[in-house]
Amino acid sequence: MDDLKVFVKDVNDAINGTLERLLPAETAYPGSIHSLMRYSSFAGGKRVRACLVMAAYEACGGNFGDDNALKAASAIEMLHTFSLIHDDLPCMDDDDFRRGKPTAHKAFNEALAVLGGDALCILAFEVLADIGRIDIIKEIAVALGTGGMIGGQVVDIESEGKEVDKATVEYIHNNKTAALIRASVRVGAMLANVSKDTLDRLTSYGNNVGLAFQVVDDILDEESTTETLGKTVGRDGEKGKATFPAVVGIDESKRYAQELIEKSWSDIEFLGDKANTLKNLAEFIRVRIS
Amino acid sequence: MDDLKVFVKDVNDAINGTLERLLPAETAYPGSIHSLMRYSSFAGGKRVRACLVMAAYEACGGNFGDDNALKAASAIEMLHTFSLIHDDLPCMDDDDFRRGKPTAHKAFNEALAVLGGDALCILAFEVLADIGRIDIIKEIAVALGTGGMIGGQVVDIESEGKEVDKATVEYIHNNKTAALIRASVRVGAMLANVSKDTLDRLTSYGNNVGLAFQVVDDILDEESTTETLGKTVGRDGEKGKATFPAVVGIDESKRYAQELIEKSWSDIEFLGDKANTLKNLAEFIRVRIS
Repeated sequence: MDDLKVFVKDVNDAINGTLERLLPAETAYPGSIHSLMRYSSFAGGKRVRACLVMAAYEACGGNFGDDNALKAASAIEMLHTFSLIHDDLPCMDDDDFRRGKPTAHKAFNEALAVLGGDALCILAFEVLADIGRIDIIKEIAVALGTGGMIGGQVVDIESEGKEVDKATVEYIHNNKTAALIRASVRVGAMLANVSKDTLDRLTSYGNNVGLAFQVVDDILDEESTTETLGKTVGRDGEKGKATFPAVVGIDESKRYAQELIEKSWSDIEFLGDKANTLKNLAEFIRVRIS
Repeated sequence: MDDLKVFVKDVNDAINGTLERLLPAETAYPGSIHSLMRYSSFAGGKRVRACLVMAAYEACGGNFGDDNALKAASAIEMLHTFSLIHDDLPCMDDDDFRRGKPTAHKAFNEALAVLGGDALCILAFEVLADIGRIDIIKEIAVALGTGGMIGGQVVDIESEGKEVDKATVEYIHNNKTAALIRASVRVGAMLANVSKDTLDRLTSYGNNVGLAFQVVDDILDEESTTETLGKTVGRDGEKGKATFPAVVGIDESKRYAQELIEKSWSDIEFLGDKANTLKNLAEFIRVRIS
């Protein structure tokens, strides 16, 4: 996994540099919102989505460091940050901490958190426009909308404290988390102009990895301590969130995560050695619970 | 002004039909957010921005009813609605009524209002992607961002209850309101593929009309009754909002609005008879305070 560590560090360095360039300076008027956008954008996430864009792009023949790929990966990170800021609001999940730091509305205020989230969403589309690929803008908008991420968030919130079945949990995870992860993989492949067949196989990989990611997150929320995870744990159970462990138990959740990761590996077998980074990223998700 | 009434009705009918087609059905899962998006989209606004897109498009040689123009105008209306939903939230302007109806967070709930606003913003970009014009996506993203509408909203909220100068009020109005109105005019012209010179003149028209629109809105907030305006009036003064009447007085505000409308007329003099609808739209804004 040493290769993966190097890759993840390279992506993080490159994305931090690109975001530094794309986000307005804190000194640019009005400064408060730019401070918030930067605070939340540099809050120390692992940048899984950017890693998937870059790994898919490289696996399909793209060169690490190509400006359009870095811009697309940065735009997707902005969109992920936008969703986290709004998710943490008092009227939504009401979280005070994320990654060990106060959430945006705690560090600034609620109005600025709503507007800062909005601004990151809008800036992401501006950055995507600069890439000049209509198909990629469409791809991302569809992944984010009510048939994707936002739809998942709605059902997540509306399911709180209710008895839900496995199908509902799968809907939430497929949309709230997997839609943007799947789109990240697809965007990397699309930027490398792959064939339809290759795109289909990578879509399946993205789907399996995206779902595994959320199942593992649910398991960690039950099993970890607040200290190791950097955010308040056990919150899912407290809030009556619809999670995999809640509907099928911890053991079956772990087995399911394992199965999803194995499926994701066979999805990209056809890429041979070029699949290594994508495989390692999937494995990295799995080892968090092993 | 009879011609204008017919034009405004035609635009409203066409945009309502287009939005009906573009917005997900209330029966589409998850239904609650689609209900909210439709509730706020069909809340009875005058669709000034859509009128400006269509009037500019026609003035520049486009045909009323062209699908791309109707889609662009509808996307801009979605973006305007997104901004109103978030603006009305308790942590922002905390308004319970708009156009005589309960605001989105009152009719539904806060979480759904945040997500419904987000979803309208994202759907607008999906619709714009379907038009296939990168330059128009870029235009609108820039108009909405922290150098435009969102920037104006930030300064508006941060100026509440403070002594502000005329320059600050002009910044707020130029960005919070005029940026999207100017972009509406520009998008209509861009869809008709006008020359740079024509686009520059229409940009100036859009700027003047956009600023006039907000100055008139401020005057109406001070002078009208809640009944005639359909929303709670006098709220600006109550909240210590930065408005033109507050910094230069009512009489000077009226003179300034008049001056802006006259400027907007001379901006489009070069279009001859084809400027009639755009002129009438500017006049329509002015007569609200005459």
